Amino acid sequence: MASSFGQLFRITTWGESHGGGVGVVVDGCPPRLKLSEADIQPDLDRRRPGQSKIVTPRKESDTVQILSGISSTGLTLGTPISLWVKNEDQRSEAYNEMKDKFRPSHADYAYFAKYGIRAWQGGGRASARETVGRVAAGAIAKKILRENFGVETLAYVKQVQRIIAEVNPDKVKAKMVEANIVRCPDAKAAEKMIGLIEKMRREGNTVGGVIEGIARGVPAGWGEPVFDKLEADLAKAMLSLPASKAFEVGSGFGGILLTGREHNDAFRARSGKVFTTTNRSGGIQGGISNGETIFFRVAFKPVATVMHEQDTVDETFQNTTLKGRGRHDPCVLPRAVPMVEAMTALVLVDHALRQRAQCG
Amino acid sequence: MASSFGQLFRITTWGESHGGGVGVVVDGCPPRLKLSEADIQPDLDRRRPGQSKIVTPRKESDTVQILSGISSTGLTLGTPISLWVKNEDQRSEAYNEMKDKFRPSHADYAYFAKYGIRAWQGGGRASARETVGRVAAGAIAKKILRENFGVETLAYVKQVQRIIAEVNPDKVKAKMVEANIVRCPDAKAAEKMIGLIEKMRREGNTVGGVIEGIARGVPAGWGEPVFDKLEADLAKAMLSLPASKAFEVGSGFGGILLTGREHNDAFRARSGKVFTTTNRSGGIQGGISNGETIFFRVAFKPVATVMHEQDTVDETFQNTTLKGRGRHDPCVLPRAVPMVEAMTALVLVDHALRQRAQCG
Amino acid sequence: MASSFGQLFRITTWGESHGGGVGVVVDGCPPRLKLSEADIQPDLDRRRPGQSKIVTPRKESDTVQILSGISSTGLTLGTPISLWVKNEDQRSEAYNEMKDKFRPSHADYAYFAKYGIRAWQGGGRASARETVGRVAAGAIAKKILRENFGVETLAYVKQVQRIIAEVNPDKVKAKMVEANIVRCPDAKAAEKMIGLIEKMRREGNTVGGVIEGIARGVPAGWGEPVFDKLEADLAKAMLSLPASKAFEVGSGFGGILLTGREHNDAFRARSGKVFTTTNRSGGIQGGISNGETIFFRVAFKPVATVMHEQDTVDETFQNTTLKGRGRHDPCVLPRAVPMVEAMTALVLVDHALRQRAQCG
Amino acid sequence: MASSFGQLFRITTWGESHGGGVGVVVDGCPPRLKLSEADIQPDLDRRRPGQSKIVTPRKESDTVQILSGISSTGLTLGTPISLWVKNEDQRSEAYNEMKDKFRPSHADYAYFAKYGIRAWQGGGRASARETVGRVAAGAIAKKILRENFGVETLAYVKQVQRIIAEVNPDKVKAKMVEANIVRCPDAKAAEKMIGLIEKMRREGNTVGGVIEGIARGVPAGWGEPVFDKLEADLAKAMLSLPASKAFEVGSGFGGILLTGREHNDAFRARSGKVFTTTNRSGGIQGGISNGETIFFRVAFKPVATVMHEQDTVDETFQNTTLKGRGRHDPCVLPRAVPMVEAMTALVLVDHALRQRAQCG
Repeated sequence: MASSFGQLFRITTWGESHGGGVGVVVDGCPPRLKLSEADIQPDLDRRRPGQSKIVTPRKESDTVQILSGISSTGLTLGTPISLWVKNEDQRSEAYNEMKDKFRPSHADYAYFAKYGIRAWQGGGRASARETVGRVAAGAIAKKILRENFGVETLAYVKQVQRIIAEVNPDKVKAKMVEANIVRCPDAKAAEKMIGLIEKMRREGNTVGGVIEGIARGVPAGWGEPVFDKLEADLAKAMLSLPASKAFEVGSGFGGILLTGREHNDAFRARSGKVFTTTNRSGGIQGGISNGETIFFRVAFKPVATVMHEQDTVDETFQNTTLKGRGRHDPCVLPRAVPMVEAMTALVLVDHALRQRAQCG
Repeated sequence: MASSFGQLFRITTWGESHGGGVGVVVDGCPPRLKLSEADIQPDLDRRRPGQSKIVTPRKESDTVQILSGISSTGLTLGTPISLWVKNEDQRSEAYNEMKDKFRPSHADYAYFAKYGIRAWQGGGRASARETVGRVAAGAIAKKILRENFGVETLAYVKQVQRIIAEVNPDKVKAKMVEANIVRCPDAKAAEKMIGLIEKMRREGNTVGGVIEGIARGVPAGWGEPVFDKLEADLAKAMLSLPASKAFEVGSGFGGILLTGREHNDAFRARSGKVFTTTNRSGGIQGGISNGETIFFRVAFKPVATVMHEQDTVDETFQNTTLKGRGRHDPCVLPRAVPMVEAMTALVLVDHALRQRAQCG
Repeated sequence: MASSFGQLFRITTWGESHGGGVGVVVDGCPPRLKLSEADIQPDLDRRRPGQSKIVTPRKESDTVQILSGISSTGLTLGTPISLWVKNEDQRSEAYNEMKDKFRPSHADYAYFAKYGIRAWQGGGRASARETVGRVAAGAIAKKILRENFGVETLAYVKQVQRIIAEVNPDKVKAKMVEANIVRCPDAKAAEKMIGLIEKMRREGNTVGGVIEGIARGVPAGWGEPVFDKLEADLAKAMLSLPASKAFEVGSGFGGILLTGREHNDAFRARSGKVFTTTNRSGGIQGGISNGETIFFRVAFKPVATVMHEQDTVDETFQNTTLKGRGRHDPCVLPRAVPMVEAMTALVLVDHALRQRAQCG
Repeated sequence: MASSFGQLFRITTWGESHGGGVGVVVDGCPPRLKLSEADIQPDLDRRRPGQSKIVTPRKESDTVQILSGISSTGLTLGTPISLWVKNEDQRSEAYNEMKDKFRPSHADYAYFAKYGIRAWQGGGRASARETVGRVAAGAIAKKILRENFGVETLAYVKQVQRIIAEVNPDKVKAKMVEANIVRCPDAKAAEKMIGLIEKMRREGNTVGGVIEGIARGVPAGWGEPVFDKLEADLAKAMLSLPASKAFEVGSGFGGILLTGREHNDAFRARSGKVFTTTNRSGGIQGGISNGETIFFRVAFKPVATVMHEQDTVDETFQNTTLKGRGRHDPCVLPRAVPMVEAMTALVLVDHALRQRAQCG
């Protein structure tokens, strides 16, 4: 029972990879925001399968429909906004072999152990298709942050396996991210990443990497100690994404190589405005934004479906083998960029409303 | 507004470093569990200042009192358990200089920006003293997990700056952790860590590191997709701890160097029991436990309070400098071990009850 | 932001009277329950407009579609169940006059004051159409209660204006309720009620009444003191229904005419089973079910839309008048019966799971 | 697991009638509110046993201590406020007979059925003593409403058994309520009520009644459709109080005797301000405040403890009898007045913050 996210700007996602579609209900949206499908579709297109040669060729138009919550004049009513995306390209037969076998490093066995039943076609609820609802809701969250709070959220591919991009979180722009199909703003690294992913696809293998997420313009004061610290909610949001394995904010794991004297961010003031001379805190101190750019990194493991025979067990708990078939991503990173942006925006808009509630 | 944690086993902590004390209300505890202060005090003693030469010499006995929720026969009633620890060694005057200045890389400025007021003595709610309530509640959670579910939770210091310990998550035991004051089960590494921390203290400097947390005996099936995945709730729990900057489960950031073929955990079955031959998943797949040992790592930054002059600003937003005084930890790791254990147990017991609720 | 109900069996409704439809997402449903549209449609048909001569002639087939959460073998997966009912008979022009005027004793003005915008066609979110999602989700809850817990929930019309039915909560059966179009199991009273409602319709006037809800077979032990007492959650559930104004459990307001000696329910035991000789408690003591039949009453005010000129104001806050037009219920009671049943079942199934979670 | 109340202004109560005391943690309080024990004690004194000849002579000073959340300058910090009241006059021996017997119409049996254990001394968590925490937290809520939002909350005894007071909800004042020991602003009715309650006490019997709660100055727009409607949350709040059996808002049960034409509240405007000419809606329409005075009534049953032999069963489920002993209230109403006020204020302040969060 955990298909809802957020305290005040609250989304509830539903849907499996197979069946009537996927969707989301967005509750708590501020009223009188101009909103139509055109605000949402672009991010769904960035998440969509079949968008480039380095992602799965599965064909889904992922066309969003708004079913409720908008006035006849195109403004949000303050009531729940229901969004629906139909499933189209369902080939259950491609999954026939999985009907009785658990795919290694997938959620098949764990779901079966939990519920005593599972949707074997395409991974059911564990499919990345579930993120359609998040990305759609995230597009609304991004619009609110931009228009009502002056906050910009952005994510990009920082690393694919050993290829690491050079990116300045304070200066990177959306169009630099969208300049190439791997969504890495460092053109040289992007080229290498694309080459590696194509190689992986040819070999029926897969590869993982790191996405960096940022938020600029967040005022000092967002975040709710002690349990809903901003970095805690971001960490939860990111680790709730399929295939993610790690999260670090600011200096992260690397920060432990420094001493306190080296690591601390000195405060300075200029014209009555406080800032820090470095930003190892990643824009968050004690769980609360401090006005600097928020940035963090999320690790995504290599996709579990490989086109090679692997050891596994079946539903009767007998040893067997399974070879991946069908249309899969050799690397989840390019399509995960809008997911990271969406979850970032959902966390931030929720905290914006929470801060307004308590502190006026 | 975020001093509660957990959906069904729900704790609410309160208290600042200065004032009437710190405490926690534990709601949702299963009834008829034998419970007394003796079950809780040992973990508080492990968290306590003044316990060894490598932690702050601040003197707090941290004696816990149970105020409610226990029958006259010493059993839990199923009603809220209120725990209280008095503050003792309060020296507000040690903080006089901080009254108007924000300590670099502390939460002082962020709290002030958020609330328009702050408890400047000792960090108030942002003080690590807040974790007393977590550790106390965690001791109850650990007992329930152990006695009702056969689950063991444990944490230990894995790394201090560049010193990395060798530890086997499947075999490490609590007494190995407690065998030395740094709480690292690798005796050789522990010795080096202690040396480094002492050096830091002498130099008025600080150092960070990594704690590894594990849970053994968790049955397959705990964790609530899609937002309250087990790793998502663990990530949130850990990033809500003071000074933590990063979280990784299983292969974590390191896993991205492998391809999918190398990274996947093959399933095997023996005597009707499913297991994996490797455990890069860290005991969690698709957000649900798979029966393997759960393990993860948390990075703690170097303590921000150093005994050297640093640039900062004051409450009127003028540039100034500040030099740390008073009694502080040169390294938070030894005392953070019981905090990581507590948060792990709180997450797990909550998910145990949630699984029982929905799936019987 | 309050379109979700329930802690563990959690529903989220969406939709206005005009637009893409109305729906509900049911999260937390136990897995492996046989479920299809055929389990849900009958209760929607009982709620549907146009079902008899004493309700609104608005024509909506209210056909439910399950969009997610069910396996290919027709069993619940434990994942969110999304239910959707299209809007069909929308005549926005019937509401043209309301575009700028607030209907007296409707929610028009309050919504406008709250959100600064409102869906003037048909009442938007305040329309009774919103309850489609509740009734659909309630049908699932009723099935779980019946099959997994042996609990039966039922409601019926107890009073219309001054006409009061004689009904025995311990013996009344569903088919007695469905024996007439007003859903009152006392045939004589039912006849009078139908006559009164028809008279009201002819006069362009409306009338209210009382629905009694019951639950039989609830084991002792459900209910969560101190805030989520069973009667507290029932009261909230009932007062969240459109047009409801009052709630009483057991002896209710009438009980205050008795002294304690007269009012108390004596306990007796027979064959190791405890029961009470009277049931003024209404099956709930201290917020927890005691094993007796749970019963309560809910008052619904006369429908606000009358076919007569009434004083009101417009959106520019000028005095004006408004006369009801269109197709409306002269009495909400017959269609509110399945709503009361649904909310009862939703409260009970949630508490069943909560009891299982904490107490095993 | 239900000792918390409120979404944003969230209280968590703890404590039994016997043990270390009772208390509450208030989370989400706006920062920089002047607050000390002196703001809270008066309401506790109104709830206190021993305050007059018509309540229980049990002696508890009920002195409140603030343990956290307040700055050294006496302002709220925005962090949790922990309040504690010690138990003093505990005579467990007075309850010896109850150790094995269930008191009729008390929660003893239901608690035992639920938890498999109970605190037999004084009713444990089901004791009215639990409301100390509510009243203490409510005093803070009342202060916020008064100072930050210009809202006044008040309650008074409207009826004791058949004695009904005449009170004008728009004009009644706090000092009129406090003018007599029964807390009824109609002096003549009050005198009769006191006479009746004294008679009941002499006879070892008890009596119930009705409390009316009001809120004046609530702006139009508070309340969260569709489940957290203002009347729904008020109903829940009131039915969560010990001994309450019924709730009605505005015209309530009486409203069903009117037709729609008679019942509707006409809107009028004067100087750009909207009001209604009657107030059968009780200040709430469609779950949202409309700017009129909010008023509602709550029924409290006669106290279950009577000084006469009654049939009951013991813990081994054998028939037996039990006669009330000890010091009990012959009528709960006078002491329930501050409880109703507290719950009203807690609901309203929560909705004030929620409205500010979503609608700015």
